[in-house]
Amino acid sequence: MARVFNFGAGPAVLPVEVLERAQAEMLDCDGTGMSVMEMSHRGKKFVSIAEKAEADLRTLMGVPDNYKVLFLQGGASSQFAMIPMNLKALSSSGAADYLNTGHWSEKAVAEGKRFVDLNLVADTKPSKYTTLPSQGDLKFNPDASYVHYTPNETIAGVEFGYIPETGSVPLVADMSSTILSRPVDVSKFGMIYAGAQKNIGPAGLTLVIIRDDLIGHADASVPAMFNYKTHAENGSMYNTPPSYAWYIAGLVFEHLLANGGLSKMAEINERKAKKLYAAIDGSDGFYRNPVDVNARSWMNVPFILKDDALDKPFLAESEKAGLAALAGHRSVGGMRASIYNAMPEAGVDALISFMQDFAQRHG
Amino acid sequence: MARVFNFGAGPAVLPVEVLERAQAEMLDCDGTGMSVMEMSHRGKKFVSIAEKAEADLRTLMGVPDNYKVLFLQGGASSQFAMIPMNLKALSSSGAADYLNTGHWSEKAVAEGKRFVDLNLVADTKPSKYTTLPSQGDLKFNPDASYVHYTPNETIAGVEFGYIPETGSVPLVADMSSTILSRPVDVSKFGMIYAGAQKNIGPAGLTLVIIRDDLIGHADASVPAMFNYKTHAENGSMYNTPPSYAWYIAGLVFEHLLANGGLSKMAEINERKAKKLYAAIDGSDGFYRNPVDVNARSWMNVPFILKDDALDKPFLAESEKAGLAALAGHRSVGGMRASIYNAMPEAGVDALISFMQDFAQRHG
Repeated sequence: MARVFNFGAGPAVLPVEVLERAQAEMLDCDGTGMSVMEMSHRGKKFVSIAEKAEADLRTLMGVPDNYKVLFLQGGASSQFAMIPMNLKALSSSGAADYLNTGHWSEKAVAEGKRFVDLNLVADTKPSKYTTLPSQGDLKFNPDASYVHYTPNETIAGVEFGYIPETGSVPLVADMSSTILSRPVDVSKFGMIYAGAQKNIGPAGLTLVIIRDDLIGHADASVPAMFNYKTHAENGSMYNTPPSYAWYIAGLVFEHLLANGGLSKMAEINERKAKKLYAAIDGSDGFYRNPVDVNARSWMNVPFILKDDALDKPFLAESEKAGLAALAGHRSVGGMRASIYNAMPEAGVDALISFMQDFAQRHG
Repeated sequence: MARVFNFGAGPAVLPVEVLERAQAEMLDCDGTGMSVMEMSHRGKKFVSIAEKAEADLRTLMGVPDNYKVLFLQGGASSQFAMIPMNLKALSSSGAADYLNTGHWSEKAVAEGKRFVDLNLVADTKPSKYTTLPSQGDLKFNPDASYVHYTPNETIAGVEFGYIPETGSVPLVADMSSTILSRPVDVSKFGMIYAGAQKNIGPAGLTLVIIRDDLIGHADASVPAMFNYKTHAENGSMYNTPPSYAWYIAGLVFEHLLANGGLSKMAEINERKAKKLYAAIDGSDGFYRNPVDVNARSWMNVPFILKDDALDKPFLAESEKAGLAALAGHRSVGGMRASIYNAMPEAGVDALISFMQDFAQRHG
């Protein structure tokens, strides 16, 4: 079968050029006579792969020198505990501010409150996570150890259009589903983290970009593997890292640099999102996006059909048309198109054509 | 370049048939039109891959029904903390017995003692980890919560020839470097764990086989991701698992089953090890294995050259002969040949020929 357009929320589509390169190198990477999967993480070849990946990411995102880039395991779900365990001692208050704006921030809150005195400065659950607070709505505790938020929520499909202004309190962002989708001023954050499986690479790799002064505050109750200091001091090789995922991430970074970097990505992503929302809004109510217009995500676009009896035929027919994984999350219903970096514009065009055709036939 | 014989200690050689299958499926797994890396872990295709991997492993190892098999992240280094955090409440003593028999058990001890009242029942450090205690030497605390040991140590190259008898106290084994090398009676263990990167698959996957009654004893201070209960209750999909590594592990399990299972592996591994040790012992002192004969590992074979000035030429010439990654760990010196399941017997034969030729030329 030919490649499909994969609209899944994650693990998600990867650039075909990256997969082709990985395929070509599977049995012999660069004349070593072995797969990257088989290489010692301390050998010359893998170390050069790892260092290039970090350097390329630093270039792509403009990561300042006073930030470490860590290649970890455990997903965002591990970060939900690691963040309070490592950062709560940043202030004498032992308190932290959280924004609850969707499924993932809700999970960060649930785990976080087990380890820190947690204060909700925003909660959009009453709107079913279809809205976001405005900058002016946010009243932060100036004595908090940190502020945590989720710039993009994959399930409801909301995305912040601004970076919350937290003064001198470090801002921590779960960028799992929006990292690398556009340029971002890293210096506005104390820490950025992301599970790899949307815009970076395979599941099983977690990227952490953390300012130096946030490292080294964990107390003796924190396991070595949950302490940022352990990983920062050992170049993410305290133990064997997820080396193959690191390698694929490096190929993705290289691919992004070769294709215009994050400003080019932003241009394409904005265009992809705008045309898809325009198709939804212009469907005379056949399709509907439940999210407040100012809070719409560029990455995850949920849409509801006017009659949920049409969901099944929509999914069956779209699948046949080579448009995969469009089923919405059960908490929202309907459909969801995740249109990450690696979703080509042609995929969005094909989806829009299909949607228009489907609406005509079932309208 | 052709494939080399890779004697690295881990990440290590994988079966070429597995890599070829992964290569063939890289852009399109089984007609799905996508790579396994791109699939939702909750989708039908990946769930079938994951379930088959578990079923095949259960068949291979004869895992009893009252054990869970977990596919986790974080490596053995995370287990070093998770084990005491989850198991110390198994007895009212809050104490645990550890055997210190090498580099890796030393790391387990260092992390473990931060979380449990830890008692060393054996310590072979005075012998530079070249010996192992005998069954009769081991006096266990009958009130301990568990006993921890490392059946095979990759650096010094020692391997237990027996399973310590701990009575009703659960035995926990770090089998990272020996799992799947031979049949093992799982029912003798409370828990077996292994980083994947030696005999299972790519780094970034950690296998845990745990008896049901050992699950559910973590207290409220334990992060959700460090609690076995979290993963047992969610089929290892509480969060996005390292799905590509899980898939590769499944291909390895399938390959082992198709090639005679673990008794066949044991037969081959024993033969490989015996002939390599025989070559070392029969070299008139040109090569020397520092380990007590009864404690020699089937998986990791260190050997010292009679003159360490010969180390450099040995490494340079062996590399040219397609024998890769033979440098010994700096704490032992000399060479180390890791001869895991996926190292073909032809690789060991080639190494022995090279060693004999090298000794003749430099003897």
